[in-house]
Amino acid sequence: MSDAREPLLREIEILDEYGQRRNIHIPAERPLTVFVDKRELVTLMTLGAAPEMLVLGYLRNQRLVADLADVLSITVDWEVGAAAVYTRQGIADLEARTAHRVVTTGCGQGTVFGDMMSQVDALQLPPPEEARIRQSTLAGLLEVMRQQDDSIHRKAGSVHGCALFRGSELLMFIEDVGRHNAIDTIAGWMWLHGVTGGDKIFYTTGRLTSEMVMKAAHMGVPIVVSRNGVTHMGHELATRLGMTLFGRAANKHFLCYTGFERFDSEPVPLPATVRVVAGQ
Amino acid sequence: MSDAREPLLREIEILDEYGQRRNIHIPAERPLTVFVDKRELVTLMTLGAAPEMLVLGYLRNQRLVADLADVLSITVDWEVGAAAVYTRQGIADLEARTAHRVVTTGCGQGTVFGDMMSQVDALQLPPPEEARIRQSTLAGLLEVMRQQDDSIHRKAGSVHGCALFRGSELLMFIEDVGRHNAIDTIAGWMWLHGVTGGDKIFYTTGRLTSEMVMKAAHMGVPIVVSRNGVTHMGHELATRLGMTLFGRAANKHFLCYTGFERFDSEPVPLPATVRVVAGQ
Repeated sequence: MSDAREPLLREIEILDEYGQRRNIHIPAERPLTVFVDKRELVTLMTLGAAPEMLVLGYLRNQRLVADLADVLSITVDWEVGAAAVYTRQGIADLEARTAHRVVTTGCGQGTVFGDMMSQVDALQLPPPEEARIRQSTLAGLLEVMRQQDDSIHRKAGSVHGCALFRGSELLMFIEDVGRHNAIDTIAGWMWLHGVTGGDKIFYTTGRLTSEMVMKAAHMGVPIVVSRNGVTHMGHELATRLGMTLFGRAANKHFLCYTGFERFDSEPVPLPATVRVVAGQ
Repeated sequence: MSDAREPLLREIEILDEYGQRRNIHIPAERPLTVFVDKRELVTLMTLGAAPEMLVLGYLRNQRLVADLADVLSITVDWEVGAAAVYTRQGIADLEARTAHRVVTTGCGQGTVFGDMMSQVDALQLPPPEEARIRQSTLAGLLEVMRQQDDSIHRKAGSVHGCALFRGSELLMFIEDVGRHNAIDTIAGWMWLHGVTGGDKIFYTTGRLTSEMVMKAAHMGVPIVVSRNGVTHMGHELATRLGMTLFGRAANKHFLCYTGFERFDSEPVPLPATVRVVAGQ
């Protein structure tokens, strides 16, 4: 596996509302065309922070490769914007397996090949007794995310971040121009290092649409936290899967959308204004 | 063309940080599988506000149909989540034309079939003398967007909005779970009603990634305003196309990222804090 790196930030000159010109940073966005055994598969538009993990996670999340040992090498060459993947046995029936396109609501890479929805009932997450989260742990996790001062988002905006936690311990954090790229990169990292999801918490700055929920479930992660909101289908899927979803989560605030049974609520005192509303 | 409607909001019960249960609204998200002359093309995940326009704009923005007269009918049936498109002559070579997938950074529908990048030099936008924007017009446009009290975003969050303006006059506003769906819906509306883009301004809540810029350019719109930021490739493309991009645009604030030549700056007085920074 290569470890290809390119600058993630670019500097441009802008003109603001005061008529002043000044320089700001913006995130890179570059095409990465994935070739599997010399056959073109897809072009991903990515920030480029961890392209090899992204490609690995993409292959996994699209169910194109079932066994990590089948992947011999992944080599990224930014000169030509290509990722060359070599597999042990090739991907059988590649054409047919990529024929059914679902264009999703994802921020970023949003295509899934095949009908993920049909796989819901096959997924098993650990029961609530074994995989739960306390409100203080959630607060700790959010505080860790708040302190990511070095992030591309802090410097340039316009990217989504995803992170994997064990309790409030940050295991991996990645940003990309699309939240699907970011979650795929985490999936690739987990796969490569044999990290299982049952005792983990997945954090994302992006919305919890159906496909984001499905990807987290496929990674085996039963608890998902978003700084953003949820769609109805994301909510339905998570409920059916027995996952716990938190949204609008920042600082000490959050909404638990579903899966209350995994959550140990430790209510903070109500501020006066909320008490009035609650009393209506 | 049908005019299929389904509820755009759902109500769910949540648990908040105060340990209180209450009801909130979240946006719908539903699959819409597009069949062209009875052949399955793609499944779009959409809020469902204007599915027929979405399908029409998708066909146009993917360059699958060149002439509006070739589209005989679009009928959406939410019972089965399907949009049936009938064309006059069929889409020649559909398989080959949808074989080259680019999975983009879009929030939402992000797949393009074919290499849009190669089309940059063929696009012609009106020159800066003919298509420009004054700062006061931009401020008026942002004020109109601020007043969209009835929006799904205001009620439920988790959607992107796109709008088409002539000066600061709002012509069309649409929201969807992905910003690509929203811009495609506007493209479909423009196409159906013979609305050209040269004297228009496109507004989006989403980020200005490469594909969003390309879609606006294909609609012939030379000026694009985003509440969000820009990626480097979006910036490069717009510069090459001679487009003007504004980002971080809300209330009276904005950054003009590129295409200063179309912009009539009417600087507002510098606040004291900004003056200090500018003087460094």
